[in-house]
Amino acid sequence: MSTPTTPALDLFLDTNLPHYIDETARLCAIPSISAHRTDAARCAQAVADLLTRHGFDVQVLPTPGNPVVVGRLQGRSPRTLLFYNHYDVQPVDPLNLWTSPPFEPVVRDGALYARGAKDDKGELLARLAAVDAVRAAHDGQSPCGVTFVVEGEEEIGSPHIAQFVRDHLDLLASHGAIWEEGQINADGQPLLTLGRRGILYVQLEAQAMTRDAHSGSAHILPNAAWRLLYALHSLRAPDGRILIHGFYDHVQPPSPLDLELFAAEPSNEARLRDEYGVTDFVDGLSGVALKQAVFNPTCNIAGLTAGYQADGMKTVIPARATAKVDFRLVPDQDPDDILEKLRRHLDEHGFEDIRIQRLGAMWPARAPADDPLVRLTVRTGEDVYGKPSVLTPLTGGSSPVYAFARPLGIPVVSPGVGYPGSRTHAPDEHVRLDHFLLAARHIARILEGFGDL
Amino acid sequence: MSTPTTPALDLFLDTNLPHYIDETARLCAIPSISAHRTDAARCAQAVADLLTRHGFDVQVLPTPGNPVVVGRLQGRSPRTLLFYNHYDVQPVDPLNLWTSPPFEPVVRDGALYARGAKDDKGELLARLAAVDAVRAAHDGQSPCGVTFVVEGEEEIGSPHIAQFVRDHLDLLASHGAIWEEGQINADGQPLLTLGRRGILYVQLEAQAMTRDAHSGSAHILPNAAWRLLYALHSLRAPDGRILIHGFYDHVQPPSPLDLELFAAEPSNEARLRDEYGVTDFVDGLSGVALKQAVFNPTCNIAGLTAGYQADGMKTVIPARATAKVDFRLVPDQDPDDILEKLRRHLDEHGFEDIRIQRLGAMWPARAPADDPLVRLTVRTGEDVYGKPSVLTPLTGGSSPVYAFARPLGIPVVSPGVGYPGSRTHAPDEHVRLDHFLLAARHIARILEGFGDL
Repeated sequence: MSTPTTPALDLFLDTNLPHYIDETARLCAIPSISAHRTDAARCAQAVADLLTRHGFDVQVLPTPGNPVVVGRLQGRSPRTLLFYNHYDVQPVDPLNLWTSPPFEPVVRDGALYARGAKDDKGELLARLAAVDAVRAAHDGQSPCGVTFVVEGEEEIGSPHIAQFVRDHLDLLASHGAIWEEGQINADGQPLLTLGRRGILYVQLEAQAMTRDAHSGSAHILPNAAWRLLYALHSLRAPDGRILIHGFYDHVQPPSPLDLELFAAEPSNEARLRDEYGVTDFVDGLSGVALKQAVFNPTCNIAGLTAGYQADGMKTVIPARATAKVDFRLVPDQDPDDILEKLRRHLDEHGFEDIRIQRLGAMWPARAPADDPLVRLTVRTGEDVYGKPSVLTPLTGGSSPVYAFARPLGIPVVSPGVGYPGSRTHAPDEHVRLDHFLLAARHIARILEGFGDL
Repeated sequence: MSTPTTPALDLFLDTNLPHYIDETARLCAIPSISAHRTDAARCAQAVADLLTRHGFDVQVLPTPGNPVVVGRLQGRSPRTLLFYNHYDVQPVDPLNLWTSPPFEPVVRDGALYARGAKDDKGELLARLAAVDAVRAAHDGQSPCGVTFVVEGEEEIGSPHIAQFVRDHLDLLASHGAIWEEGQINADGQPLLTLGRRGILYVQLEAQAMTRDAHSGSAHILPNAAWRLLYALHSLRAPDGRILIHGFYDHVQPPSPLDLELFAAEPSNEARLRDEYGVTDFVDGLSGVALKQAVFNPTCNIAGLTAGYQADGMKTVIPARATAKVDFRLVPDQDPDDILEKLRRHLDEHGFEDIRIQRLGAMWPARAPADDPLVRLTVRTGEDVYGKPSVLTPLTGGSSPVYAFARPLGIPVVSPGVGYPGSRTHAPDEHVRLDHFLLAARHIARILEGFGDL
């Protein structure tokens, strides 16, 4: 999808690429490893300065953790596109596997090497380049409003971003968002994930006695491991179906368009069998059903602990037993609702004594395959990359996409600078300069079209 | 039950008590802690010398661990009574809680204090005193044959005694045995345990994949924890009943005499509720049914291990899960037979993949309440202690009693020198001199009657 300004956009980006790579490198020189709690304030300020230099109205806002940088820019259209990014990075060990030091960015073989070069400082700068390009093509005014939200705790699980969004709904009001990262596949096709599952993570605990007992009394004394086992067994059938009353109430099935996308997707059956040494999948699934199964919510035992676990024998009746259980939830399930139903299920099945501890929750989030922003992203992606996008209706994992999509009521898409060799989170992380340019072109075209959707 | 020689037996024991206490003390001075692998050979030789001095034909026989001392004495009757004892002792820590050093035996307040004074060197010497007494009363000849088997690894689980007995069936051929230890209760009544349960201890293992996977794939990838849970669930109903086909085939119910004994036994319900904070017993048992339930074999989960077990969350599908499971077996169940049936059960229920590792086994062993040796022990006990014995048809735990009872085909009883304050395995272990004397008198009377049973 070309517009009259497309040649100007591409010329601007071609010409100024070295400048944006240089700005990426300068940001990458700050070792903002959130896991080590160092350089967060310094890097937040560097991002704030960067956005200010590029004409944004900037605020550095506190959270209980690292600050969030918000930059806003008015546009011709009243519609606003939100960019979610982060200025923190992963740790760098093992250091000896880096060809050049992770915080001394260097361009080598057509790529910028540094921790954060791809994830997520390269993404941030490619977007800023795109904003500058559309402004240059329109006498300094962006065709739509632009809001950057750049947090500092993404690599430690974004513990504060959901509350931050809820606390700043007016400031962040927008009509669509670009997620923090994106990539092309090995064939050079842009990947576009439309939905992520939610999650409810709980610990279940059975306490049958005040202390362990000799197993010679197992004919009379209650065993917490058995108790927990019967409770868990009541939750899920061997075919994977969850037996909690009302569990499936709000489940949305895949749309006809989703089913078409699954049918077109290449099979990963052989890869999974090989990678995990699996002979049989859950419920004997295979073929296209294996792909569609991501629309099945799950009840997964992530951990079990009871009694004696070392080598050899100990004849003990465990007084206490615990299980870590995660439920992956599909649109439109709600972890709060599922937690209530879990409690009610246990109570109704005589397991009032099983204690539930809520350890974490995320909501599912999903943009329909025919959403206008999705269609714009696909069209402009084909224009830039010369190839159709690969659309994934729903992925098995969870992400804080919901933290924006849900309270702001917006679709979220994820174009970006990555490719399968980016070495994200690993030594020799890098962004290829040609991919940086393609991503910037792609996002510039999205900015061009977004105001008129 | 008195005999014409009873006064002579008692006079001999009264007169010579200081000598046997002195011999006990000398044996207790040897720090034969089997857990520390020290002084075993020295203590075995001391026992061999002791038995030789008392007229026994002695052999010190090797095992893969510590040697076993066997002493044999011919008697007037062809019937032989076997004494099982051990020369090893428990560790002594915490040392600061001992009033006098554990290996410097001392008589204080009418008791001999030392590690091993009760368990098991005091028991050994009380028996030897009884043998000397009956010989003295019968012109030097014992009224029955006597065989001592004194091992050196009882306190580390008797890993070699069962094989030792099987390897020396002719040497150890006998018509009844006295177990290594015994005691009176707080009311001064001799306790007599007639049976111990057997055990089959296994580790069950599910391996669903070659490595753990992200729980975002739980809709397709198999989970070892769930797999193991379904397998375990197939083994046992919530009321405790075991669902393995043929599991109860060889179970012998309690006899009418056993039921009378249970009815007479004081209830331990309140103590158990208090000690373990238990509100409900298995299958809602209470009253006399709680006591009789020891005749129910059990399937106990002693440990469960899978996936992530530390604090907080990890979203993982465990590739491997294990359970430690012990089956307490009642007469006449056989752990080898149960292991076969467990394998068959899992196979028939589609759990061919669940691996079973056999970690240990003991057979049940039981003397009928109306066995002649049991009756002789009860009768002579009442003569000595002036009180009826408390008979327990079966205890919940297991012991190597079977290692003698089964291959030699003999009843085993357990009179002894202990009382509830003996501090066995603890600091300030001791044997009271009056109890030592009573036990020696009791055993002398058993020796008197055993030849004619």
